[in-house]
Amino acid sequence: MPTTFDDVCAAAVRLRDRVHHTPVLTSPLLDEWLGFHAFLKAEHLQRSGSFKLRGATNAVMTIGDDLATRGVAAHSSGNHAAALALAARDRGIVAHVVMPADAPAAKRAAVDGYGARVVECEPTIAARENALRRVLEETGAVEVHPYDDDRVIAGAGTAALELLEAVPGLDVVIVPVGGGGLLAGTSIAAHGFDPAVRVIAGEPAGADDAARLLAVGRLIPSTAPDTIADGLLTSLSPRTFDVIRKHVERIVPVGDAETISAMRVLWERMKQVIEPSSAVAVAGARLAGLDGLRVGIVLSGGNCDPRQVPWALDHPRRAAPDLS
Amino acid sequence: MPTTFDDVCAAAVRLRDRVHHTPVLTSPLLDEWLGFHAFLKAEHLQRSGSFKLRGATNAVMTIGDDLATRGVAAHSSGNHAAALALAARDRGIVAHVVMPADAPAAKRAAVDGYGARVVECEPTIAARENALRRVLEETGAVEVHPYDDDRVIAGAGTAALELLEAVPGLDVVIVPVGGGGLLAGTSIAAHGFDPAVRVIAGEPAGADDAARLLAVGRLIPSTAPDTIADGLLTSLSPRTFDVIRKHVERIVPVGDAETISAMRVLWERMKQVIEPSSAVAVAGARLAGLDGLRVGIVLSGGNCDPRQVPWALDHPRRAAPDLS
Repeated sequence: MPTTFDDVCAAAVRLRDRVHHTPVLTSPLLDEWLGFHAFLKAEHLQRSGSFKLRGATNAVMTIGDDLATRGVAAHSSGNHAAALALAARDRGIVAHVVMPADAPAAKRAAVDGYGARVVECEPTIAARENALRRVLEETGAVEVHPYDDDRVIAGAGTAALELLEAVPGLDVVIVPVGGGGLLAGTSIAAHGFDPAVRVIAGEPAGADDAARLLAVGRLIPSTAPDTIADGLLTSLSPRTFDVIRKHVERIVPVGDAETISAMRVLWERMKQVIEPSSAVAVAGARLAGLDGLRVGIVLSGGNCDPRQVPWALDHPRRAAPDLS
Repeated sequence: MPTTFDDVCAAAVRLRDRVHHTPVLTSPLLDEWLGFHAFLKAEHLQRSGSFKLRGATNAVMTIGDDLATRGVAAHSSGNHAAALALAARDRGIVAHVVMPADAPAAKRAAVDGYGARVVECEPTIAARENALRRVLEETGAVEVHPYDDDRVIAGAGTAALELLEAVPGLDVVIVPVGGGGLLAGTSIAAHGFDPAVRVIAGEPAGADDAARLLAVGRLIPSTAPDTIADGLLTSLSPRTFDVIRKHVERIVPVGDAETISAMRVLWERMKQVIEPSSAVAVAGARLAGLDGLRVGIVLSGGNCDPRQVPWALDHPRRAAPDLS
């Protein structure tokens, strides 16, 4: 049975005291740049640095005690890995995380820091899936997929639910889309909260399987995604697509240049470190013709290395002496 | 007559609705790293990107109407320039800002953006002072010094006052020190609020005139300051020193490596873009032996170019593909 609004509400109760009720940020400068009144749900300030903790925690907390003792498992090199590791630590069970050997050191360190058991593998999807299968066979652990999982979708939907409860009269909610877990959860939450709320997604133009999917009505996974938004390389699953096709008004393609501009505005004007995936939602909202509306935007995460700030390469480092 | 607690309280009333009542940020991860419970007054989220707007606005608002029509003036290549420009715009008067020709483009753009009249000069202190003198003679504008000004000191003190009102039972308040405006205002505010509150400052080891001053009891300006904290290159004035010697318990010298570590923790773990000057206060607190205490820290500003993030040079840019 697909995820329902009741599932999202139940997840919200379950997650209380386990995840941060993140703040909603606003900025007149940002509003001027966007042309509408933006309410940013600050999931980059969530524990583990992304909204992924919501889905991971909802899944981990709903596993029966007997199964839970065997632990949980996933393959991931990104935010889901850290989130699952933290959710498992919160419950006091083991997380087995299959990570490619070339995963960024900072992400590997986060997963290690949360006490997960890391299983290294070759950096191919096939190797990751094989390694995960072996882990599941050897340990009996419960797989928690990053998005193709109803418990994860319901948990992800709680971010939008909190946003809609915090900000009366939102016209639109917009989130980034990769595998579609956040978008599916958001659309269920928004539709259940108020069917008049429009749900839109920003998607990297270089990984636009969701847009094509909505256009032609069937799954065509991205085979060679090319975007700076490293959290959005994955493709929808039939499960997330089924939800999204029902409730999502539109998928806005966002070029990397637009993503970088939005990221830069958030960093430089709002002083918030957001990762490119978050900026895809902001840039998508800017492109969506929402002038004058009240628009909720979920900033999905803030896990990126400032050393890799995408506008860093244009300019050599300058000494900047300032006598106040 | 030197600045009093009443002056700070009057400034707080005057600034209401003119500056942001910035939030106080906390983080269990940060507390673990610091060894005490930290309450961060988020002046990097202040309008103009730094606490400087408080002093500039307090000064600009207390000028009589007749004088005000002639405008205000200062030389600055940093946060005071932007703050004075914005404070003047808020009052509808002209700000004449003398900036060296090599001022960072982003800071110049901010000052231009707030509608100030920028007077360019050679990048030496002598040229800046000469240019300012000419501007004052030609326009009759009122000079608003970045820190050697009682109105500016009183305004700066309102940040600590808000922090002390928001967080009951603070043991210590710590701020960065450059010219000493923030430290003087903070010490007046803290002492007036509760004489038991200890006031400490973090100071760049490479621009340690305040520490030497407190040690030997007389002014020895820094002649060749060398620190990454570009907002703290200036030296105390007799006015700020007189306040500081009375109320400040200790000046903690902070090396650039410690500043960079603190900056990195704030960026990477708390997702907050703070400038090096803010990090000097955080690092100073960490070095000050405050284990277990409740410590208020003023994050003075967030105006820095992410392209110049100081840990950027250690590592080449890496592609970081992530399949969530």
